[in-house]
Amino acid sequence: MIKNIPFSSITINDGFWKQKQKMVRENTVYAVYDRFQDTGRFAALECKWKEGDPDTAPHIYWDSDVAKWIEGVAYLTALEKCEELEKIADEAIENIIKNSDEHGYFNSHYLVTEQDKRFTNRMCHELYCAGHLIEAAVAYYDATGKDAFLKAMCRFADYIEQVFKVENSAAFTTPGHPELELALVRLYHATGEKRYLELSKYFIDEHGTNDKDITPEQKLQKDFPSYNQDEMPLRERVEVKGHCVRALYLLCGMADLALEYEDKELAAACERCFDNIVYKRMYITGGVGSTHAGETFTVDYHLPNRTAYAETCAAISLAMFAGRMQCLRTDGRFGDIVERVLYNGMLSGISMDGRSFFYENPLEIDPDFNDVTNPYWGKEHYPITQRKEVFDCSCCPPNLLRFISSVAGYLYSCDEDTVYIHQFMDSETDYQGMRITQKTKYPSEGEIQIHLYGDKKYVAIRIPGWCKDFSLDQPYELKDGYAYISLHGETQITLNLQMPVTMLAANRRVHDNAGRIAVMRGPVVYCLEGVDNGEDLRSIHIPEDAEFVLTDNEFMVPSLQTKGYRPAGSEQLYLPAKQCYEEISLRLIPYYAFANRGASEMLVWILQK
Amino acid sequence: MIKNIPFSSITINDGFWKQKQKMVRENTVYAVYDRFQDTGRFAALECKWKEGDPDTAPHIYWDSDVAKWIEGVAYLTALEKCEELEKIADEAIENIIKNSDEHGYFNSHYLVTEQDKRFTNRMCHELYCAGHLIEAAVAYYDATGKDAFLKAMCRFADYIEQVFKVENSAAFTTPGHPELELALVRLYHATGEKRYLELSKYFIDEHGTNDKDITPEQKLQKDFPSYNQDEMPLRERVEVKGHCVRALYLLCGMADLALEYEDKELAAACERCFDNIVYKRMYITGGVGSTHAGETFTVDYHLPNRTAYAETCAAISLAMFAGRMQCLRTDGRFGDIVERVLYNGMLSGISMDGRSFFYENPLEIDPDFNDVTNPYWGKEHYPITQRKEVFDCSCCPPNLLRFISSVAGYLYSCDEDTVYIHQFMDSETDYQGMRITQKTKYPSEGEIQIHLYGDKKYVAIRIPGWCKDFSLDQPYELKDGYAYISLHGETQITLNLQMPVTMLAANRRVHDNAGRIAVMRGPVVYCLEGVDNGEDLRSIHIPEDAEFVLTDNEFMVPSLQTKGYRPAGSEQLYLPAKQCYEEISLRLIPYYAFANRGASEMLVWILQK
Repeated sequence: MIKNIPFSSITINDGFWKQKQKMVRENTVYAVYDRFQDTGRFAALECKWKEGDPDTAPHIYWDSDVAKWIEGVAYLTALEKCEELEKIADEAIENIIKNSDEHGYFNSHYLVTEQDKRFTNRMCHELYCAGHLIEAAVAYYDATGKDAFLKAMCRFADYIEQVFKVENSAAFTTPGHPELELALVRLYHATGEKRYLELSKYFIDEHGTNDKDITPEQKLQKDFPSYNQDEMPLRERVEVKGHCVRALYLLCGMADLALEYEDKELAAACERCFDNIVYKRMYITGGVGSTHAGETFTVDYHLPNRTAYAETCAAISLAMFAGRMQCLRTDGRFGDIVERVLYNGMLSGISMDGRSFFYENPLEIDPDFNDVTNPYWGKEHYPITQRKEVFDCSCCPPNLLRFISSVAGYLYSCDEDTVYIHQFMDSETDYQGMRITQKTKYPSEGEIQIHLYGDKKYVAIRIPGWCKDFSLDQPYELKDGYAYISLHGETQITLNLQMPVTMLAANRRVHDNAGRIAVMRGPVVYCLEGVDNGEDLRSIHIPEDAEFVLTDNEFMVPSLQTKGYRPAGSEQLYLPAKQCYEEISLRLIPYYAFANRGASEMLVWILQK
Repeated sequence: MIKNIPFSSITINDGFWKQKQKMVRENTVYAVYDRFQDTGRFAALECKWKEGDPDTAPHIYWDSDVAKWIEGVAYLTALEKCEELEKIADEAIENIIKNSDEHGYFNSHYLVTEQDKRFTNRMCHELYCAGHLIEAAVAYYDATGKDAFLKAMCRFADYIEQVFKVENSAAFTTPGHPELELALVRLYHATGEKRYLELSKYFIDEHGTNDKDITPEQKLQKDFPSYNQDEMPLRERVEVKGHCVRALYLLCGMADLALEYEDKELAAACERCFDNIVYKRMYITGGVGSTHAGETFTVDYHLPNRTAYAETCAAISLAMFAGRMQCLRTDGRFGDIVERVLYNGMLSGISMDGRSFFYENPLEIDPDFNDVTNPYWGKEHYPITQRKEVFDCSCCPPNLLRFISSVAGYLYSCDEDTVYIHQFMDSETDYQGMRITQKTKYPSEGEIQIHLYGDKKYVAIRIPGWCKDFSLDQPYELKDGYAYISLHGETQITLNLQMPVTMLAANRRVHDNAGRIAVMRGPVVYCLEGVDNGEDLRSIHIPEDAEFVLTDNEFMVPSLQTKGYRPAGSEQLYLPAKQCYEEISLRLIPYYAFANRGASEMLVWILQK
C-alpha cells in the first residue's frame, strides 16, 4: 500500500515554499485570527449567546472556520512551536470541550439556538463542522501530544455513530456537506479505532442510495438537485456534479476508503470523476467550479473566465483529492494536478502579504464592467477585483492557512520498495529510516538535486506533464509519468527539467478561450495585468512566434516580457476590420500574484494571431 | 419644419418589406391575437374579473399589449381593409369605451382590483397603458374614420391633465414608464388640441426635477435608481441610463417636443443621448440594453454577446427615436440607425413565418452552455434559444406588428423645399401633390430607381454610412450623409449603392469582440449558425483576406459562403498552442434569420486571424 509521507517528517529549508510558510506563520495565522475574533467566531465557542442578544446567533458553519484555524496552528506548531498561538488554540479547545454536551455533541449554533433541531436539517453543516473539528483534534494531538481535544472528538464521533448508524434516528442519513467522511479516516489513523473507518464507509455506502436523504421520486425529477451529491450511488459515478467543494471532499473520503479497503470499484469511480474534472471541467489554474450559482460544477467544457467561480477551497480540495489518488495508482497525472493547484488556483487565493483572500478566483478581471447594472434592480454576478480580509462565509482563509502549513505532505509517498517523489521543494526529510534531501530553486529554475539514503530499492521521480525535455544523471526507466531509478545505498541524483516559456491553447470546446493562448513556464500560469500593460487587455494579441524574456523576480518567480500588438483607439464603435496595431512591450506576472497592486484588468487567456 | 411623410400615403409594392408586411397580415396579427385571447388579455377589457375568480386578475400592463395590437390592425386596415380584424378591434374598443369610468379613466387592472389605488404607484404602468391606448385610438381613427375610441381617449387624456397637471393630486408627477409623452403629441396632431401638447411638455419638464417622483435625498444616493430616468432634468442629459425602453420612449417624446417647440436645448439633449447610444452602447445589430438585470443600459462599451438583452422593443424604440431625430437635424446618421435596426435587431425579434418572437436578441447562442447550473440553486441568466409565441410580459410581439405594418413611415420626410429619402423600399407615394416611386430589390441589390414628381426644389437622398462607393446619374452635392439633387419637374434618378461583403471590427474597448469581426453586406449583419456550420463556432476563424460568395436566397437576401478554419478536436483540455486546422466551407445567413431551424449555436462576431 502506498502511503503519503506526513508533512511533519519534512522540513522545507529554502525557496518558494519556505517563503510562503514564513508568510503564513508571520501574517496569515494572525490576520485570520483577528478577523475571526472581530466577527465573534472565537467567542461563539463559549456558547453564551442568548435569544435577544444584540449580535446575531453564531452561524451554522463558524465552528468549521475556527477548527481549520486550529488545524493550521497545529501544523505550524508541528514545524516550530509558538506559545502565543498554542495558548489561543488551547483556550478555544477548552471552550469546545467544556461546552460539549453529555453525549459529546458540539455545535456552537445548535447548542445556543435550536437544541431540539439537532440533526434535523441535512443542509445545516453540522456534520461538516464535526469533520473539521475532528481533523483539528487529530492535527493538534499530532503536533502537541495533548489529547483532550482528540478524546472529546472521539466522544463526538461515537455519538454520531450511535445516532446515525446504530439508531439511524437522525432526520437524514449522510452528511449534506461532506467532510466528516475523510475526517473519520484520519480519526481512525490517529486512534487505531476501526469503528471510525467503518462509520466513514457507512456514510460513503449510503450516500446517494438512501431514501431518507432523498426519495426515489425526487431522484427521478428532471430538475433533481445534485447539489448534495445524491444523484446516484457513489460507486456508479461517471462525472462530477453539484456543489464543487462538497463533491471533492466526498471524493477524498471515497479515495481514502478505496485505499483502506482496497475497494477497486470505489477507486474506479474516483478515477472516472478525476478524469471528468481534469479533461473537461478544470481551469488551467487548477480552479474548479465554473459558476457562482450554487458554487457548482456545470457541464463539460464550460469554463468562462470573467465569471469563473473557482473557489479557493475547491482548488485546495482538488489537490487533496489528487494527493490521495497518487496512493491509489501511480501515475504522474495526479501529481501534475497537485502541482497545477499549488502554483496557481490555490495560491491566487492569498495576497502576497498573506493577509487578504479571494474566495473566487476568476481568470479575467474587467473592473470597468464589474458593476454595470442598476443597483435598484440587482446586478449580474462578477467576482470581486481585490482580496478581502474576511468573508461572511470565510472557509477559504483558514483553509489556505492549514494547506500551506502542511504543503510538504504532498512531496512524497512510499510503499515497501519504492519512494515516490511527487513535488519539488528545497527540503530534507527523515521518515522511517529514510533520508531524502532536495536542493532546488524550483519553480524558478528546473534543476533539482536529490539525495537519498535508506533501504528502499527504487526512487520514482515524477516528470511533470508540462516538461517535454528533461535529463537525469542516473539510469532510469520511464513509466506513467515517473522516472524509476534503482537505489544502491546512498544515492545522489540530479534532475534537470527544461523550463521554456510555452503557449497553450484550450480544447476547441472551451468556447471562452477560442483564439486565445495561456502562457506557462514550468507549472506556473502567467497573466497580464492592467497595472503593467494598460487597458483593453483582451484586445492585445501576441504573435504565434512570440519570444519571452525572463525579467524581474518581484513575485518570487521570474516575470516575463514579450512583444504584443494593441489595435489603435477609435471614436467609432464599429470600423473596418483592417486595423492599425501599435507594438507594445508586455509584462506577464504569475497568475497567483494578480491583484496585489490595486484593481486593474487581468487576463490569463491572451489573443493570438 | 421637417416632417415625416405618413406611412398611409405610401404603398409598398414589392420586395423585402412587401413580403414582411404580407407575413404580418397573414400570420402575425392572428398569432398575436390568438395568444392574447388564450391568456385573457381581450376578455380583461370586459372588466368582469372579481376577487375569488379562478384566473388571476388582469395584469397591469395587459391593456398596452391589446392597444398595440389594435394599433397594428389600424395600420393594416389603412393599407387594406380587413373586416374580420376590424370586427375584433371594434369589440375590444367597445369594451374599453363601455368600461371607462365617469372620468374617462380606463385600466382593466385597476378598475377591477384596486379602484382606490389609481394613480398611487408610479411603477404600475397606468400612464404607459394610457399612452398606448391613445396611440391606438389615433391610429384607428386615421385608418377607419371611426371616432368613438379617439373621443374616449380624449376624455381620458383630459382626466389625466386634470389629475396630474391641474390638481397635481396623484401620488407622483410624471409617468414611471414613459410612452404617454409621445402619445400626447400624436393626440395633439390628431385633434389640434394644444392642451395635449402642453401636457406632454409638462411631463417632460417635470421629469427628473420633481421631488414627488424622487426626493432630493434619494437622488444624491450613490445607488440612485436611474431605472425610471429620474437622475437629472432631461435637458441636462449627457448619457443614457436605466431601463432601456423607458429611456428611448422618453427620448421620442423629448424629440417630438423639441421639434414642436423648436426647443434647441431639448434637441441638444436628445442628440447627446443619441451619440452616447450609437458611439458607445449599441450592438452592431442596433440592439440596445446590455443586461437582463433591470433591462437596462449599462456602461460605455459593455456589449456582451451571449448575455445581450437587446430587447426587441428597445430596438424598435431606437428606430422610433432615430426617425424623430431626422426631423430635428438632417444627418444621414439618423437614417443609418433606423436602417440598422430595421434589418437586424428589430427583425430578429420575429420568426420567418411571423408567428413566434424573441424578447431578447443575443448576438451569440451556445445551447450546450445555456442551462448549466443546478436548478435547485438558481441559474445564470441566458436568453432563450428559440422564439416563443407569447410571453408573460408580451410587449414585443404586438410592437413588431405595429412597427412592420407602418414601416413605410420611415421612408421620407419633407420640408417646404426638399423631400428627403431616408430608406429604400420598392414603393409608390402620393403626398400633398408629390409623387415618389422607388423601384428596387434593396437590400438584396443596391440599385434604386427613383421617380419624383411635384413642386419641391430638391431631393436629398441618404447615402448609407456603410456605403463607401455609390453612383448617381444626376448631378448632386453631398452634405451630412445626403446627396442633394435639384428637381426640375418630373425627375428620374438612378442610385447605385455598391454592396460588397465587408468585415467590421469593434472598438477595442468592446472587450467581448476583441480579435473578432462581424460580416455585413449593405445594411444586413450576418451570422454563423450551428445547423449550417457545426459545433464550436467561436473557435472557427476566417482569414483577413477572406472572400465571400453570394449563394442562396433562403432568407430573402443572399446567404454567403466563405472558407474558414476550425482547430482539430482533442482529448486534451489544454494543449500546445500550435494547432492543426481543418479548412471548412462556411455558410453565413442574415442575423435576423437565426433560430428558424431549431436550436443550435449562433455567432455574429467571428474570430479572425
